[in-house]
Amino acid sequence: MSHKYNVLLIGTGGVGTIVACGIDYAKKSNLSIVVRRDYEKVNEKGYDIESIDYGSVKGWRPLNVYPSVSAASLSGDIYDYVVITTKNLPDIMKIEALIEPVVTPKITSVVLIQNGFDLCRPIIAKFPNNVVISGVTYVGSHNTNGNVHHTQTDKCFIGSGKNPNLPEDLQELKTREFVSLYSNGKNNPIYVQNEREHRYRKLIYNATLNTTCALTGVDTGRLENAGGLDSIALPAMHEVLAIAKADGIELPDDAINTALHLDDGEYFEPSMLVDVKKGNPIELEVILGNLLRVGKELGVNTPILNFLYSLLTVVQYRLREGQGLFTLPEERPVSKKFYH
Amino acid sequence: MSHKYNVLLIGTGGVGTIVACGIDYAKKSNLSIVVRRDYEKVNEKGYDIESIDYGSVKGWRPLNVYPSVSAASLSGDIYDYVVITTKNLPDIMKIEALIEPVVTPKITSVVLIQNGFDLCRPIIAKFPNNVVISGVTYVGSHNTNGNVHHTQTDKCFIGSGKNPNLPEDLQELKTREFVSLYSNGKNNPIYVQNEREHRYRKLIYNATLNTTCALTGVDTGRLENAGGLDSIALPAMHEVLAIAKADGIELPDDAINTALHLDDGEYFEPSMLVDVKKGNPIELEVILGNLLRVGKELGVNTPILNFLYSLLTVVQYRLREGQGLFTLPEERPVSKKFYH
Repeated sequence: MSHKYNVLLIGTGGVGTIVACGIDYAKKSNLSIVVRRDYEKVNEKGYDIESIDYGSVKGWRPLNVYPSVSAASLSGDIYDYVVITTKNLPDIMKIEALIEPVVTPKITSVVLIQNGFDLCRPIIAKFPNNVVISGVTYVGSHNTNGNVHHTQTDKCFIGSGKNPNLPEDLQELKTREFVSLYSNGKNNPIYVQNEREHRYRKLIYNATLNTTCALTGVDTGRLENAGGLDSIALPAMHEVLAIAKADGIELPDDAINTALHLDDGEYFEPSMLVDVKKGNPIELEVILGNLLRVGKELGVNTPILNFLYSLLTVVQYRLREGQGLFTLPEERPVSKKFYH
Repeated sequence: MSHKYNVLLIGTGGVGTIVACGIDYAKKSNLSIVVRRDYEKVNEKGYDIESIDYGSVKGWRPLNVYPSVSAASLSGDIYDYVVITTKNLPDIMKIEALIEPVVTPKITSVVLIQNGFDLCRPIIAKFPNNVVISGVTYVGSHNTNGNVHHTQTDKCFIGSGKNPNLPEDLQELKTREFVSLYSNGKNNPIYVQNEREHRYRKLIYNATLNTTCALTGVDTGRLENAGGLDSIALPAMHEVLAIAKADGIELPDDAINTALHLDDGEYFEPSMLVDVKKGNPIELEVILGNLLRVGKELGVNTPILNFLYSLLTVVQYRLREGQGLFTLPEERPVSKKFYH
């Protein structure tokens, strides 16, 4: 490439640092990152990384490290790609509002490497003339105060978010270009025609096992022992398949079996359970809320997923209160409602 | 009464101490109690009670205080009434096994003043020639290491457990006799023809709000705010009514409204939520398990209650593990099952 693109990555948790590291390792772009929590430390000393893909890396930092999105915006750089690797919590902070200062209309391609489903819809609504790209990642990585432990190779399925306002070939071009910027011979970003299929595949696990473990407070091994895999997660998986089918996506016969054997040999705590235990808000809206909205649009009956969603909405309320996002009156107000 | 009956009460939590206190206050029987956790202290100093019914009582203790059921058995006394006010946790400890040493065939009447539903079935199966009596209590009381704080008057609906092997009039007689032994002018034990109706009434709250709060980790006020009352507890209440109806019991039109306004003005934490927070096992089997067994026998469709039960079964598994009731292999065994 003759001209080096400017890439800004926002969200440097376990996944984000490894995606950033991968883009930097490829040396095909000028990479900046936004680091909120550990800014001082990272800006000074960089990250210490133990990586299954990149080996032992001491003090890695990219070209620019910013403490906030607005700082990244004030740099004056025009970003060709803005890569989002934060948690996606629309009920707490909307991604489209977060990135507004660094998205240049018509120029910036927005890349969402996040959990969940139907993530591009609000981004396209806010930035109707920008390319939006969707990445479904399977990286396994943890970042503890700048020490990154990367245990599962960086494999990412990347497709166009299909903005109806832009020509398809342009979107495919930008998507393939991003895959190229991100590929470095060690990692495995894969261009795909239909990102939605890969979102559904991941939801077979995340909308069912992840949610059920979060509600019941157990890992996937204990869930199986206690009968919750058979009584809840498995029938919920069939509801995910039913929505996918109504959406024109026929997942392979063994998709459920594959999801249920992902944690073989491990008492694995999925992400939502980890969040609940830490008192962090859960990615309920993008994992289950968006799926149920699409299911409803398609007229699919999903009683178990609806029920999990209703219960987890209450859990999320508790977590939001715990984060100080609202406070209740000291006396509980008396409801005058007559219930029947 | 010319002959004073021997009464043994087992289980001296908040409810149990007040029931015992009430029976003792009536002075119509020789009362013994089994105190497990605070035996030393209670045997020496008795209970300090602040009671809405009995005022301020210092150092109350009945005739005999025993540290265990077997100690009560070894005293040589024949008990005319054995009153159980423990938690009812058949998946952890069976009441019928617990009381076996103090139940004399044909003589002892067993009185269950406990939460739940269809409690008499296993007792009658084990003691086919004994009267079994069922009490649905609304007392509000807490016992903290021998300090009892009794805030809500002792009101108890008491009926025959209807042992099919014994004449009905004998069972009614023994039930009325127990109500008389327990009545003291301050409290309010009420003889009822059909205890099952009162069990159903209490389940409108306990099978729904109590279970949902336990799962989501919030009190009933927050459950309402977060939408869980409308999305889960209310439709679950209709399933309880449907089982009662199939069982020949038509509950009054305003039963649901009454249950939902019980905690008006209070961010109330129901018993199961309190247990989950303390890491104690929950009364899942008697509150929900027994109800669903009866619902199934009667052919009633209860998807929400089933679902709550499945999830809480997993929670109970976690609580039992936390109590050290089992340990798991260090490595999760790999399931060879093919799921579809």
